[in-house]
Amino acid sequence: MISIKEQIKIITKGAAEVINLEDLEKKLTEAQKENRGLIVKLGLDPSAPDIHLGHAVVLRKMKQIQDLGHKVVIIIGDFTGMIGDPTGKSKTRKQLTSEEVLENAKTYERQIFKILDKDKTELTFNSQWLSKLNFKEVIELAGKYTVARMLEREDFKNRFNNQQSIGIHEFFYPLMQGFDSVAINADIELGGTDQRFNILMGRTLQKDYEREPQVAIFMPILEGIDGVNKMSKSLGNYIGINEPAQDMYVKTMQIPDNLIIKYFELATDIHPDEIDKIKEELKNGTNPRDVKMRLAKEITCLYHGEAEARNSEEYFKSLFQKNEVPLDIPEYKLKSEETLIEILMNSNLISSKSEAKRLIAQGGIKLNGEKIFDAMKLNFNNNDILQVGKRKFIKLLQ
Amino acid sequence: MISIKEQIKIITKGAAEVINLEDLEKKLTEAQKENRGLIVKLGLDPSAPDIHLGHAVVLRKMKQIQDLGHKVVIIIGDFTGMIGDPTGKSKTRKQLTSEEVLENAKTYERQIFKILDKDKTELTFNSQWLSKLNFKEVIELAGKYTVARMLEREDFKNRFNNQQSIGIHEFFYPLMQGFDSVAINADIELGGTDQRFNILMGRTLQKDYEREPQVAIFMPILEGIDGVNKMSKSLGNYIGINEPAQDMYVKTMQIPDNLIIKYFELATDIHPDEIDKIKEELKNGTNPRDVKMRLAKEITCLYHGEAEARNSEEYFKSLFQKNEVPLDIPEYKLKSEETLIEILMNSNLISSKSEAKRLIAQGGIKLNGEKIFDAMKLNFNNNDILQVGKRKFIKLLQ
Repeated sequence: MISIKEQIKIITKGAAEVINLEDLEKKLTEAQKENRGLIVKLGLDPSAPDIHLGHAVVLRKMKQIQDLGHKVVIIIGDFTGMIGDPTGKSKTRKQLTSEEVLENAKTYERQIFKILDKDKTELTFNSQWLSKLNFKEVIELAGKYTVARMLEREDFKNRFNNQQSIGIHEFFYPLMQGFDSVAINADIELGGTDQRFNILMGRTLQKDYEREPQVAIFMPILEGIDGVNKMSKSLGNYIGINEPAQDMYVKTMQIPDNLIIKYFELATDIHPDEIDKIKEELKNGTNPRDVKMRLAKEITCLYHGEAEARNSEEYFKSLFQKNEVPLDIPEYKLKSEETLIEILMNSNLISSKSEAKRLIAQGGIKLNGEKIFDAMKLNFNNNDILQVGKRKFIKLLQ
Repeated sequence: MISIKEQIKIITKGAAEVINLEDLEKKLTEAQKENRGLIVKLGLDPSAPDIHLGHAVVLRKMKQIQDLGHKVVIIIGDFTGMIGDPTGKSKTRKQLTSEEVLENAKTYERQIFKILDKDKTELTFNSQWLSKLNFKEVIELAGKYTVARMLEREDFKNRFNNQQSIGIHEFFYPLMQGFDSVAINADIELGGTDQRFNILMGRTLQKDYEREPQVAIFMPILEGIDGVNKMSKSLGNYIGINEPAQDMYVKTMQIPDNLIIKYFELATDIHPDEIDKIKEELKNGTNPRDVKMRLAKEITCLYHGEAEARNSEEYFKSLFQKNEVPLDIPEYKLKSEETLIEILMNSNLISSKSEAKRLIAQGGIKLNGEKIFDAMKLNFNNNDILQVGKRKFIKLLQ
C-alpha cells in the first residue's frame, strides 16, 4: 500500500494549486482506512477533440492518480457543450448541435484511452443527469449563485466591462460543471488553472447540496514548443498525441531549455524524485540537449512505445545531429506529380531552373542527408527533408 | 359590431402607455375581418391574493375588453411564483412552496370572478407549460437575452449598483413571463407600469420564437385613499374588493378631489365619453363631493350591486353628512363582553369612570348618531360608530 505522503507527492507533482491540502490528506486517509478509491473527476469539453500535450497535462495526472488505485471518472460535457465553455472567450460561443457534440465525443474517446487505462476509467456524459433536470430544478440550481459573484469570473467581468454581450445561458456553464461534481460525488476535480472558477463552483454547490466539497487540483498551462505561448493548435506550437513518433521526438527537441523540467513534470509520468535528480544533473552541468533527448524519448515512448521511441532517437541522431539539420524547418506541401526540380522552384529554394539543374549536378542538393542527382525524381515520402547547400531546408509534406 | 375606433377608445381609456397603437389597430382590424376575438393576457402573481382597487385596475380593463368580445386569458403564475416577481423589490424574495402557491391561487380565483365574466374567461396556470420545459429548452430560452440587458431592468440595476445580491434564478422571472405570451399566443398583454420590462419581454420573445409580437398596455398605478402613496394593503390606504359595501363607499369618499377623475377612469367601467362629461361638470363648478358620491356609489355598485350601493349612500348621508362625522375614524377592536362604559375607558375616549357615567347620563354619547343612555350595553355591531361630544369618534370592529 502506497503511503499517504507518497500519494500526495505524486498527486501534487507539477500542480499549480491545490485547494486544499488538508482536505486532500483527510480524504486520502479516510479512503485508505475504508479500503476504497477516491472519485477523481475530469470534465472534458467536447468541442476541442484534437488532443495535444497541453490538453494531456490533466489526463496524465489522472493516469498517475489512477495508478494509485483511485477511480477516474471522465465526464464528457455533451450537455454543457450545447453552451460551450465561455472561459477565456471574448464572445458568446456558437452552440453545438447534439450531433456535433456526439461526433466530437467519439473522437475524444479514441484519444483519451491512449493515456488512461480504459478498464479502470468510467466514461460518462453529463447529459445523463443534466438533461433530466426540469425547469424547477434548474431554478433551484440557479438560485444557489448570485449575478454579482458570477460576474466576478474573469472572462465574464471583462466582457461585461467592455460591453460585450454575455448570454444569460452562459451563466449555466459553471453551474452545470459544478452540478456534475454533485451528481458523481466527486472527491477530487482536476483542471487547468483557467478552470479555477468552474471547479471551485463544484465545491460551492457540493456544500449547498450538503455533500463533502471536492479537492480542486489546478494544473499549470503548458507552453508550446515556441516556449512563449500556451500550446495551441491554432498557433501551430503544439505536439499532438496522434502525431508520428519521429515528429513528436523532433518537436520536443525544439523546446527551449528552460522548459525541460516543466515538460518532465507535466508531459511525462516520471516520478517526482527522479525529476529532482534531473534538476540536479542540469545544475551540475549536464548538456541540456542530452536531457532534452531523454525527455523526447520519454514522451515518444508514452504514445508510441519503447521501440518507436528508440527509432525516433536514431532518426534524430542520424539526420539532425550528424547533418546539423535545424529542428525548425519550414514545411512544403507537395503537389501531385511534382518533380525534384519543380519542388526546388515552387518552394522558392532556388529561383532559376538552370541554377537548380547545376546544383543538382554538383551534388549540392541532399534528401534526408544523402546527395541526390535525379532532377526528375517524382516520389517522395512524408517528412522527407530536402537540403540546398549548407543552410536551406524544407520538410516535404504529402 | 363595435367599430375599431370605439374599441380603441375603450381599450386605451386611462392607459398610461400602449406599445403600440398601430399594432393594436392592425390586430383589431384583422380579428374583426376574421370574426374572432383577440387573446388578451393578464399574468397574476399568486403571492398577493388580497385584491384591492389598485390590483383591480387591470382586471377592470380586462372586463371592458372582454365585453368587446375578446378572449381573456388569466395566467396565474404558480410556476413563476416559485421565484416571486423581483419587480421593485430590493432583495431576493422568499420562494413560495407549491402548496402555498396553489392555496393563494384559489383565493385569487374566488376574487377575480367578482370582476370578470367567469364563462368568458380562461383561467390557467403557467406551470402547465413551464414545468414541462427541460434544461435544454431552458438554456435556449436563457440564450435569448443578455446579462447586460437584463441588468437594465430598474430594480435589478439598483440592486446590482448597490451591491445587493440578485440570485441568478431571478433573471428567469421576466423570461418566464415572456414565455407565457409565446405559450398562449397573446395578442395583448395588460399590466401596471411597473410591469413594463416583463411585458416587453413578451414582445421580444414572441419575435424570437417567430410569432407576432403582442400589444403591451400599461395601466397607471392607482394612489390609495390617502391620495399620496400607491394603494397597498400594508400602508392601510386601500379599498379591498371584498370589503362591506358601506366601508367601500365611505373609503371612496375619503379620496382627495384631484383623484376623482382618475378613479372614474381606473376603478369603474364608465364609458370614456361619460367621463368627459363629468370632467366638464367639475370644471363648471359642480360640488366635487356630489361627483365623489356618484363615484362611491358606482364603485360600490360594481362589487355589491345596485341595492347595496343605494343603502350605502343612505347610510353615508344619514350618518356622516347629517352628523358631520369625519370619514377617517380610528378603529377600536371590541373585546368579548365589553360594556359601553368599558369601551369608553379602554379606548381612552374618556379617562375616568365617573366622567363616563356623567356623560352617558347627560346624553353626550351617541351610537350611530343616536344618543345612548345604557352604560352597561353589551352587544354592538361591526362598524358601529361611537361618538363622544362633538369631535371624538371611534368605529367599533368585532
